[in-house]
Amino acid sequence: MSLLVLGSIALDTVKTPIEERTDLLGGSASYAAIAASFFSPVNLVGIVGDDFSKENIEFFKSRDIDLGGLQVVPGKTFRWSGEYMWDMNQRETRSVELNVFENFTPDLPESYRSARMVLLGNIAPALQHHVLDQLIRPHFVIADTMDLWINIAKEELLSLIARVDMLILNDGEARELTGETSLIKAGRKIREMGPSAVAIKKGEHGCLLFGDGQFFSCPAYPLEDIHDPTGAGDCFAGGLAGYLSSRHISDADLAEKKEIPFEFLRQAVVEGSVIASFNVESFSMDRLREVTKADIAERYEIFRTLSRFEAI
Amino acid sequence: MSLLVLGSIALDTVKTPIEERTDLLGGSASYAAIAASFFSPVNLVGIVGDDFSKENIEFFKSRDIDLGGLQVVPGKTFRWSGEYMWDMNQRETRSVELNVFENFTPDLPESYRSARMVLLGNIAPALQHHVLDQLIRPHFVIADTMDLWINIAKEELLSLIARVDMLILNDGEARELTGETSLIKAGRKIREMGPSAVAIKKGEHGCLLFGDGQFFSCPAYPLEDIHDPTGAGDCFAGGLAGYLSSRHISDADLAEKKEIPFEFLRQAVVEGSVIASFNVESFSMDRLREVTKADIAERYEIFRTLSRFEAI
Repeated sequence: MSLLVLGSIALDTVKTPIEERTDLLGGSASYAAIAASFFSPVNLVGIVGDDFSKENIEFFKSRDIDLGGLQVVPGKTFRWSGEYMWDMNQRETRSVELNVFENFTPDLPESYRSARMVLLGNIAPALQHHVLDQLIRPHFVIADTMDLWINIAKEELLSLIARVDMLILNDGEARELTGETSLIKAGRKIREMGPSAVAIKKGEHGCLLFGDGQFFSCPAYPLEDIHDPTGAGDCFAGGLAGYLSSRHISDADLAEKKEIPFEFLRQAVVEGSVIASFNVESFSMDRLREVTKADIAERYEIFRTLSRFEAI
Repeated sequence: MSLLVLGSIALDTVKTPIEERTDLLGGSASYAAIAASFFSPVNLVGIVGDDFSKENIEFFKSRDIDLGGLQVVPGKTFRWSGEYMWDMNQRETRSVELNVFENFTPDLPESYRSARMVLLGNIAPALQHHVLDQLIRPHFVIADTMDLWINIAKEELLSLIARVDMLILNDGEARELTGETSLIKAGRKIREMGPSAVAIKKGEHGCLLFGDGQFFSCPAYPLEDIHDPTGAGDCFAGGLAGYLSSRHISDADLAEKKEIPFEFLRQAVVEGSVIASFNVESFSMDRLREVTKADIAERYEIFRTLSRFEAI
């Protein structure tokens, strides 16, 4: 089955301590869809202006990403500009131009409405609700979010969280959302808000996954140099969702308890981490253009050795 | 063989947001020795005043800790007082009284000088040098340190680092010592300073272990409540060193290359993490008084499941 991916499609300007690049393909849906495409066909829901290049369209198409849900309208594509500080850990948003995104209320193509596996990429919760409302019988809905929505759209975010099966957010956001300083308490508290699974991203420290009485600590890949962290979180979500979509989970299993075996979720978190670790090695999605399935399998095995130790 | 443990022995006053306790058994050598004693006999090197209780002495003795290197002198035992902030992550030292510690220059008992496995617990680098100078042919020397020594005794610390086989420090200290923001770069840089193994502790994010071309990311135990973080780092170092001491590594192996197999180091880091995770559940060493070998084995296995995931 195809994975439905909703989110922003953007043209980014990114400044690092070393270099500045403009008109980069970006946005949460772009990163997530490309990441997911290593594992699963994707149905993309988004909007771009008439300044969006034919090359970008072709890039999506070349990755088995269906564009039936992509609106191309007169006007300018959503633009984001950000700057990374010297240690690449801190980022400052320099400007945001919503442009064609401002009035985006997508009507899903008929064939998209029966999606079973869904990634509501990082975007306004109202838009995530709007797409979720159009789905007939989704089996597993993953939502990604960010601090902005906790700050300006908390009520809508909370009602969205109650409707999804898995929430992805980072450590600072998990603390902000729950008022808990312990990430363990925060993860468990978010599960009580609705999602059966919660992934808390910790940047250079890896990721924590919470399930029903189960817990997984995913290590971070020991990268020495990060060229552009933009989209790492979106790639993580996309890789994770794409992997889950690729697993042949019988409808009966899902209909029964709407849960995915925790072992699949563990593997999905690692696959997402692998894709994200590649992505930060270059600007935009440049690194993912050349990565192969074999590269991914190899790094997955490196992840296994990173945290492996023998019983005593 | 016995593990030689050097460090401070203190009476602590600890204030948490919930409770304040005085005259607690503390100090880097106390925590490390008790932690190590789960795995190995210990030879303790330290100093206390005549206010140090018989109960504390008996506690050490009950744990197979040899006190031939413990000086009991007239005067007051070293005292430390600290306060933890509401989230238990930040600590403020309220007072330090060196007392009998001020003029501590230990003369090791003859039988201690042939120690093979050595833990130079967190203490002034000059004192760590002084003890190391008296050892005849140590096989594996582990040093623990803290930011204070980077700030006030950097030269002595650097020359100590060049003499030891393994260095243990936390993430902030690794960054400060190397000027690298990436912990991966920091860990590799410290290895170039001398030690064949480096462990970087990351608190709630676990620990990174660096060896010769090898790397291990140890998860943190998902504790929801921490009652007293004091001594967690010392217990980690002590548990790690005690475990290594307990492994029967043939002298020939060690003489050959002075290295311990990386697999043993991985296990040692986990054992250290297990002991530390128990210790923070109560004030002082109270939790370790009741923990059994079976409890440790059980939690070791939980650590294994925390980060386990299947090949694809």
